[in-house]
Amino acid sequence: MDFFFAPRGVAVIGATPNPLKGGNAILKNLLSGYRGEIYPVNPRYRQIEGLPCYPSISAVPDPLDLAIIFIPAPLVPASVEECAARGVAGVMIESSGFAETGAEGFQYQSELRKMAAGKRIRIWGPNGMGLVDVKHDRIFSFMDPRARQREWIPGDVSLVVQSGLLSATFLFDIMSHGLMGVSKVCSVGNKVDVNECDLLEYFIGDPDTRVIGFYLESFADGRRFLEIRRRCTKPIVVLKGGRTRKGAEAALSHTASLAGNHRIIAGALAQSAIIEVRDFRQMTDVCRTLAMMPPPDAPGNRVAVLTFSGGAGIVSADFIEENGLRLADLSEETRTALRGLYPAWMPVAHPIDLWPALESHIGQNVNIFGLALEAVLADPGVDAVFLHAFTGNAHIRIDPTDLVRPVRESGKPAVVWQTGRREESFSFQQQALRCGIPVFTEIGRAVECLAAVLRGRYRPETIPALGIPVGPL
Amino acid sequence: MDFFFAPRGVAVIGATPNPLKGGNAILKNLLSGYRGEIYPVNPRYRQIEGLPCYPSISAVPDPLDLAIIFIPAPLVPASVEECAARGVAGVMIESSGFAETGAEGFQYQSELRKMAAGKRIRIWGPNGMGLVDVKHDRIFSFMDPRARQREWIPGDVSLVVQSGLLSATFLFDIMSHGLMGVSKVCSVGNKVDVNECDLLEYFIGDPDTRVIGFYLESFADGRRFLEIRRRCTKPIVVLKGGRTRKGAEAALSHTASLAGNHRIIAGALAQSAIIEVRDFRQMTDVCRTLAMMPPPDAPGNRVAVLTFSGGAGIVSADFIEENGLRLADLSEETRTALRGLYPAWMPVAHPIDLWPALESHIGQNVNIFGLALEAVLADPGVDAVFLHAFTGNAHIRIDPTDLVRPVRESGKPAVVWQTGRREESFSFQQQALRCGIPVFTEIGRAVECLAAVLRGRYRPETIPALGIPVGPL
Repeated sequence: MDFFFAPRGVAVIGATPNPLKGGNAILKNLLSGYRGEIYPVNPRYRQIEGLPCYPSISAVPDPLDLAIIFIPAPLVPASVEECAARGVAGVMIESSGFAETGAEGFQYQSELRKMAAGKRIRIWGPNGMGLVDVKHDRIFSFMDPRARQREWIPGDVSLVVQSGLLSATFLFDIMSHGLMGVSKVCSVGNKVDVNECDLLEYFIGDPDTRVIGFYLESFADGRRFLEIRRRCTKPIVVLKGGRTRKGAEAALSHTASLAGNHRIIAGALAQSAIIEVRDFRQMTDVCRTLAMMPPPDAPGNRVAVLTFSGGAGIVSADFIEENGLRLADLSEETRTALRGLYPAWMPVAHPIDLWPALESHIGQNVNIFGLALEAVLADPGVDAVFLHAFTGNAHIRIDPTDLVRPVRESGKPAVVWQTGRREESFSFQQQALRCGIPVFTEIGRAVECLAAVLRGRYRPETIPALGIPVGPL
Repeated sequence: MDFFFAPRGVAVIGATPNPLKGGNAILKNLLSGYRGEIYPVNPRYRQIEGLPCYPSISAVPDPLDLAIIFIPAPLVPASVEECAARGVAGVMIESSGFAETGAEGFQYQSELRKMAAGKRIRIWGPNGMGLVDVKHDRIFSFMDPRARQREWIPGDVSLVVQSGLLSATFLFDIMSHGLMGVSKVCSVGNKVDVNECDLLEYFIGDPDTRVIGFYLESFADGRRFLEIRRRCTKPIVVLKGGRTRKGAEAALSHTASLAGNHRIIAGALAQSAIIEVRDFRQMTDVCRTLAMMPPPDAPGNRVAVLTFSGGAGIVSADFIEENGLRLADLSEETRTALRGLYPAWMPVAHPIDLWPALESHIGQNVNIFGLALEAVLADPGVDAVFLHAFTGNAHIRIDPTDLVRPVRESGKPAVVWQTGRREESFSFQQQALRCGIPVFTEIGRAVECLAAVLRGRYRPETIPALGIPVGPL
């Protein structure tokens, strides 16, 4: 699969100088970061975007590993045939108009499937948006060329997305909001050949990927996916579209996917310690948390809650119980340390309401958050910390960089729920992202993500053999 | 209750010139917006913040309706007694140190309860943050005086929050993020006298309040609350802290609340058509949606989905089914209209994937979103529209103001799920808020809020008589 991810030479079949067309966007995206040879292919032009243009793929010189195809669907099968004849290792078909559109498109897709079965060439797509590799600045996609911007954040999460547009809008959104760093996004479309199994297998050995998230409308081969999973110790998160009857009907018309029985799928995923989510932001949230806070060797579920608001502490306690975690029993040492921060009238309770301590030390330059955090992290009865931060009080400051050292030294996961004014919140979130501390705006989501971490490292030996029939899910 | 919300004259018992103290913040907050007489009370000063300071409440001249008390808990009962003697109609006690802290505080609270029972004076608090009235710029609270800013957005949602800090941080957060306009926030603390029943009753007649949200740790009188509910046709949203055993224990130490059996509470709320939520942002989201989109007279559940991403459409269809709504069956007229926007190869399906229509009209100045929206709004088989918007494509623009007229004219609710780059997203969201169109960043939340609207207007005559014992919930 390296010829898809790190090709020596990329041809663009359907390249055009028209800036409103995808065939132009693909070229511009390649030029913006890819370091290898780039070959526009279009018999109508001699030069596009300053590059020599070739009349056909057979005229393209070496080195050439990959062809990105963006021409009308009826012309695609012949083009792939030519690529195979030229010895191209892989094609990425980003045109739509295949099985998702009806009988005629279905026919084109069948031809592609036959070619892939012949093993002469690997086919990615059709009806997808290709590949974006943020770490290596490789954009093999027709997405808006403005997308590659300074705000893009390289990270350790790779995504496989069985939906075209979504991969681009998703990238725009999550990186611009400073939510998550990304390694690779693979938009695989109708999956005529390359599918989630191939990509999961690839990511096992990819040093740039620590967590893998999937948006899928169908499983190409459920059994194979779960078998590969058993060799993958990286956390896996799946959002499966088409859980319901109407959703499944929509999946059929979108990527010609047979969504399958969701109860069977959900059971198989759970049995294989794959985390199932239901929404896109939720997928991002779980993935980024797992990338920042690798699951500990041993599972644990005792959480300490440090808050500035009694009410938020109570709601957190509710979510902690509802997510199968529990409020830690604080040790006498911890209680003594906290008592030292409180005014005399305030009893120590859990969740730990820091407000009276913060208020009584205003103007005294005492780092209450830091001292309380160190106390609970040192408690052997605490497996993780849930900290609430409020950025917006003129007299009380909280700095994510202060939290990093104690958290790292303890080796215990810590997540932050944060509220405050918009600009201060964003700055806090960005700092925290750089520090590797996940920040959330909803208590429930923070606890859910912490629970994903606390389930512990995936150890295949602890997972029972596949006990249910999972042929095509 | 008008002496709390629109008092003629407010005294501040515990006023101080020390800018680090709450007694100073209360004065500054009053000065920043309240138009009536303000009387600092403190025997140690003759003047504070430019106002004459009084040695005791008995020395304060008329007009005087309300005293805000911010002095140590042991001194509070005597101070309330003096207020009653002076003829003050209501006191707002914002000090803490009462039943939430142990036996001694419990004793002070009992004294307050006795005074309230004597009916000479109404007591708000203790251990709360008072009242913020955004529409009338009345801040009767020790919250950070910087909180009153240009970004504050007056609106139609009033909140009752049984937690101190939360009301302030919450206000900072939701208004700075442009999420919701707010009318009044009442932070009622330990509810020794004024409780959620009094406030619900007040809001029935408050012309500035269209939706009421409650964060409660206990119900002071469940039966009365539900009885008042039957006279209130405004939507009511409740977040109940202490759903679980550990959460309930935390509520006891926070506001000395007996959280009650949550299964009984949830049943009683559902029976009374009160919307129950579990998290703070979720409460904001449901409240703001109901404020912007008043529930229609007749319930309906047929939703049209307009998307730019097949994948997002599928996930939306799943959430629609899971929330008791359903994908509308589009009429032949609607399908014909949509077919006219699509390229020939694209069949019309539902969810309606607009991407091929958008892409094929790039550069042609055709308002695809607007035309598709008008088509589905005109369809008699459609009760509401769920629109997906992506702000960030250089060639495809979507402007919330374009959506307003067709949505208003149709009288059908419409919600938007939006992704895109951070600054463009914020600008879109702010425009949409001004237009009265709710925007969300999670598909699931958007559908949940739409479902709250589509349940229809609350009509007491359709609600069965209270059938279960709901004494103290």
